[in-house]
Amino acid sequence: MTAPRARADSTRVGERASREYLERVFEETKNWGRWGPDDERGALNWITPERRAAAAALAREGHVVSCALELATLAGPGNPNPAQHMMIAAGDARDMVAPGLETSLDYVGVAFHGMAVSHIDALCHVFVEGRMYNGFDASLVKSIGALRNSIMSARDGIVGRGVLLDIPRLRGVRWLEPGDCVVPDELVAAEHAQGIEVREGDILLVGTGRDARRAHHGPWDADTGLAGLHPTCVPWLHGRRIAALGSDGVSDPLPANETPGWPIPIHQCCLVAMGVHLLDNLELGRLASACASRRRWEFLFTLAPLRIERGTGSPVNPLAIF
Amino acid sequence: MTAPRARADSTRVGERASREYLERVFEETKNWGRWGPDDERGALNWITPERRAAAAALAREGHVVSCALELATLAGPGNPNPAQHMMIAAGDARDMVAPGLETSLDYVGVAFHGMAVSHIDALCHVFVEGRMYNGFDASLVKSIGALRNSIMSARDGIVGRGVLLDIPRLRGVRWLEPGDCVVPDELVAAEHAQGIEVREGDILLVGTGRDARRAHHGPWDADTGLAGLHPTCVPWLHGRRIAALGSDGVSDPLPANETPGWPIPIHQCCLVAMGVHLLDNLELGRLASACASRRRWEFLFTLAPLRIERGTGSPVNPLAIF
Amino acid sequence: MTAPRARADSTRVGERASREYLERVFEETKNWGRWGPDDERGALNWITPERRAAAAALAREGHVVSCALELATLAGPGNPNPAQHMMIAAGDARDMVAPGLETSLDYVGVAFHGMAVSHIDALCHVFVEGRMYNGFDASLVKSIGALRNSIMSARDGIVGRGVLLDIPRLRGVRWLEPGDCVVPDELVAAEHAQGIEVREGDILLVGTGRDARRAHHGPWDADTGLAGLHPTCVPWLHGRRIAALGSDGVSDPLPANETPGWPIPIHQCCLVAMGVHLLDNLELGRLASACASRRRWEFLFTLAPLRIERGTGSPVNPLAIF
Amino acid sequence: MTAPRARADSTRVGERASREYLERVFEETKNWGRWGPDDERGALNWITPERRAAAAALAREGHVVSCALELATLAGPGNPNPAQHMMIAAGDARDMVAPGLETSLDYVGVAFHGMAVSHIDALCHVFVEGRMYNGFDASLVKSIGALRNSIMSARDGIVGRGVLLDIPRLRGVRWLEPGDCVVPDELVAAEHAQGIEVREGDILLVGTGRDARRAHHGPWDADTGLAGLHPTCVPWLHGRRIAALGSDGVSDPLPANETPGWPIPIHQCCLVAMGVHLLDNLELGRLASACASRRRWEFLFTLAPLRIERGTGSPVNPLAIF
Repeated sequence: MTAPRARADSTRVGERASREYLERVFEETKNWGRWGPDDERGALNWITPERRAAAAALAREGHVVSCALELATLAGPGNPNPAQHMMIAAGDARDMVAPGLETSLDYVGVAFHGMAVSHIDALCHVFVEGRMYNGFDASLVKSIGALRNSIMSARDGIVGRGVLLDIPRLRGVRWLEPGDCVVPDELVAAEHAQGIEVREGDILLVGTGRDARRAHHGPWDADTGLAGLHPTCVPWLHGRRIAALGSDGVSDPLPANETPGWPIPIHQCCLVAMGVHLLDNLELGRLASACASRRRWEFLFTLAPLRIERGTGSPVNPLAIF
Repeated sequence: MTAPRARADSTRVGERASREYLERVFEETKNWGRWGPDDERGALNWITPERRAAAAALAREGHVVSCALELATLAGPGNPNPAQHMMIAAGDARDMVAPGLETSLDYVGVAFHGMAVSHIDALCHVFVEGRMYNGFDASLVKSIGALRNSIMSARDGIVGRGVLLDIPRLRGVRWLEPGDCVVPDELVAAEHAQGIEVREGDILLVGTGRDARRAHHGPWDADTGLAGLHPTCVPWLHGRRIAALGSDGVSDPLPANETPGWPIPIHQCCLVAMGVHLLDNLELGRLASACASRRRWEFLFTLAPLRIERGTGSPVNPLAIF
Repeated sequence: MTAPRARADSTRVGERASREYLERVFEETKNWGRWGPDDERGALNWITPERRAAAAALAREGHVVSCALELATLAGPGNPNPAQHMMIAAGDARDMVAPGLETSLDYVGVAFHGMAVSHIDALCHVFVEGRMYNGFDASLVKSIGALRNSIMSARDGIVGRGVLLDIPRLRGVRWLEPGDCVVPDELVAAEHAQGIEVREGDILLVGTGRDARRAHHGPWDADTGLAGLHPTCVPWLHGRRIAALGSDGVSDPLPANETPGWPIPIHQCCLVAMGVHLLDNLELGRLASACASRRRWEFLFTLAPLRIERGTGSPVNPLAIF
Repeated sequence: MTAPRARADSTRVGERASREYLERVFEETKNWGRWGPDDERGALNWITPERRAAAAALAREGHVVSCALELATLAGPGNPNPAQHMMIAAGDARDMVAPGLETSLDYVGVAFHGMAVSHIDALCHVFVEGRMYNGFDASLVKSIGALRNSIMSARDGIVGRGVLLDIPRLRGVRWLEPGDCVVPDELVAAEHAQGIEVREGDILLVGTGRDARRAHHGPWDADTGLAGLHPTCVPWLHGRRIAALGSDGVSDPLPANETPGWPIPIHQCCLVAMGVHLLDNLELGRLASACASRRRWEFLFTLAPLRIERGTGSPVNPLAIF
């Protein structure tokens, strides 16, 4: 297969990369066994204490930017399973919950995967031919939960250097259109334009302007698709040894790749081959502004999934700290 | 009223402080209006960018300690509303969710208030005589959610200097018994023993050894109560201008105070009078060990509630970073 | 006001009846106090044991027809809050739930009001100017549930004579279009055509062919509206002393009536003025066929809401027994 | 194995019947293939239209008795997963849900299996050595739901002759103690005492007085166990060709049988071998009174599960109509 080289190719509907290419890339980017046969942390192993400490030193202003969307409780084509937020007791019953106690209480519930909720994917979220990261069998993800590669692998949080590559800024547009693909050359070009280099152990965030687009077009138009990374970005991501990958979309462009067996190559190669946790549906508009105004695209990044035993991920509110 | 002075008093069952005392303290520690009539952030206002940056400088080792319990999905006397974790699709249906896509999905739901889930209380969680922090009326917390003082006040996270006061260590015990009360003198004594001072803008964590006790006694024995802060700690907390208060219990000792109208004075004075967010049911055992081994009880603290519009709080996984 | 007389008027978008007319009808059809000041059963009081026994005598064939839709777990414009059905344990974990026990378990949850789930509305579901049936104040429906007029009023089921009026059959069409209104003359005409009379204590079901339309157009097109009863049907319903009213839509035509304060006059007058429970989103296609093939439009009708204390209704599966 | 003959044996803790006996009974009571290789309705096939019509003729008084408990929203040892009932909008927000509409809304959710909720078990709820009724493999019950033997087999309701056998009445006690076992001779004795015979196609309800006991001892003491049917009742149930079996407990006595592989023989033999749906946790106290006062223990019985596709059962509110 010849990888797409030009922007012109990048928005093509259909097969974004051939099966042969993807199978080869999948094999070549496998980190299975790299951190031992029982490892479930994958590329999080790239984050060393030294790198965390260096990242913390980036927080010299004490300015915090949340990278999460408001929890999406309204249904729409891009949010078929809206989050639930229900009061258990409100101000009208403030003295009826327990004797002498005035309180309000609520419940929150969410099927967080999808295109609407800011969340982290555990390494058990996707399989390729029945296998997870490090070769664990899909049957280990049971109806009672994931016995391997659950989100508990990240239970102590993901703390390290965050780097934003701002593709709309590179292209001089407000946002990328759904289905549009970011190619590897653009990642490199963004590095150059921003004066930064993605390094081993970084949490890489790729902005596509989705928030600006949604602000313009209205909520949850995601059914028309999302911009994302072209499959040919996989070797580049692998080469840079990133620890985690986030996006304001779901990293994979949608509509899905039409190559049989490879609908979402970024998910498949990152989660399964490389053991790279994915951060989906982040809000990167505020972050892009914060970076641009400082001309600084690196920051201390912290993310703390809920400690959900056997979980396939978690809703999150990641913080970028300058 | 004469405040209890001695340890001997602190475990007394019954009225821990008189109504007159609590009413006076409530009035004297009120921050209503301090940050303007529309303020909903309360004591989070004490955290300045400078203080955050100084806190980040504490993260010089790059060592992270999670302060959250595993999400409690098993019911028990102290966990009457167990969290829900249910798979939507597992490895046995990996190719049945969407054509060509092998995936696992789940749902998580939680009524997080109570004694089992690590969570943050929004300033709308408790009322005193029908009022919330800054004087807002309880009726503004409706069946459709909180129109004021929701958890969205903390939507950009709580990042600052965390300080742990380790009371079992001070007392030379493994844990405090349920109902036992920490008095102000002990907070000061812990500061001295640990060589640290609680300062304006700190996130104060008070450890009572609950995790060690539960490990010994088994899960969710909380029905027998929790250790916590004696009501006379309120003026001290107010004087130190803390930004948030966390505990491995719920800060208030349980069984509840028997003074009519004042069942949980710490909640009532912190949330309502002072505008201090509370962090309940943290896991502080790991943190206590990390602090003791370093002989350092300060660290960068980060907490990021889910961005739940109109919510009364959020489950969280706070991180302490050394 | 002049009530619409002709079919030509019935599909008019906009104000289907004036405010003056609706206010007058509301007052004239009020059953408040009729069964005492504490009554919460409303028109269910019309069903006497004698009428139930007579209805049971209609079940002479022993043929049962379910009047419920499959629980709608897929979101769509007409189903913004899809029901939740999640397995807790499946065949892949059959021996992991409890030692030696092979079992599967699941969870079902539903916000049943709306346009997708077959359900019964309790008399607390709608207010008119802050009042419920029998004059109870809306404030009695609290964030912790309905203290009056909850679904527990029907906790022992609704059993009586069911009568179907089949409007598409009357009109010689397969279905009524969304927004189309059934007028009182048509109810009478349907009675004549079917050789049946709606009597005191009957459970009246009005079919509009929604199921046939959905089968043709695809699922949950309900955003384009629903056919229903014109507001001028209210006096007729009151005069007949029906015990409950059901429909394959929601009885009220949608889009809603544009008269200020009277968006859904059937709901408002039935639930609030008359105390008539409503059955929404029934599946009446199978029933219509069963009736037509027998040329018999009466049957034993049984409906049993879940016994939800303080609930505003319940999902149901009503049965028509011939 | 020799089946227990005497009451004295019936409350024995431990092995209530040997493995050899249970394996033999399981084989001898199998209805697999009886109604064809694809049948999923099992013993519901015993209910013919004629039997339904005859049952309807029993409803000559028009008196209805609900056989369901209030939905159990409070946790306890016997109710570890309390049902959820949460308001979405109450009277305090009656005009804030939709413009001009005054409404209240709620949500109900329940993991209905267990010892607290009145529910029906679908034939997919239990496996024996990886098999369901009619030989279907347990792997057909997936994380996405049951592809075979789901509750949809009963989607058109269960309507027929109900018969109550009132064991406390037979024994002259108010209730049976947890763990106590009803033996086949008692079923026959109850028939004689009540002047009724259990026949082909009946829905058999066996009362153990659980409701009276709970009223005396307080809610959800079920952790101490439940009275139920001794395993030796299985051949009798099979011989009578009942269509469904209900109880105020869960039919099986608890604590569970200690014979390896046979913890709940009634569930295992009824659901898997015979294809008999089970109705658990019914409220039979009101029914027992209604029967005794009439000296009539037969009635029209109607039960209508929610139409939950792929579901393992449903919460229900069965009705007995005299």
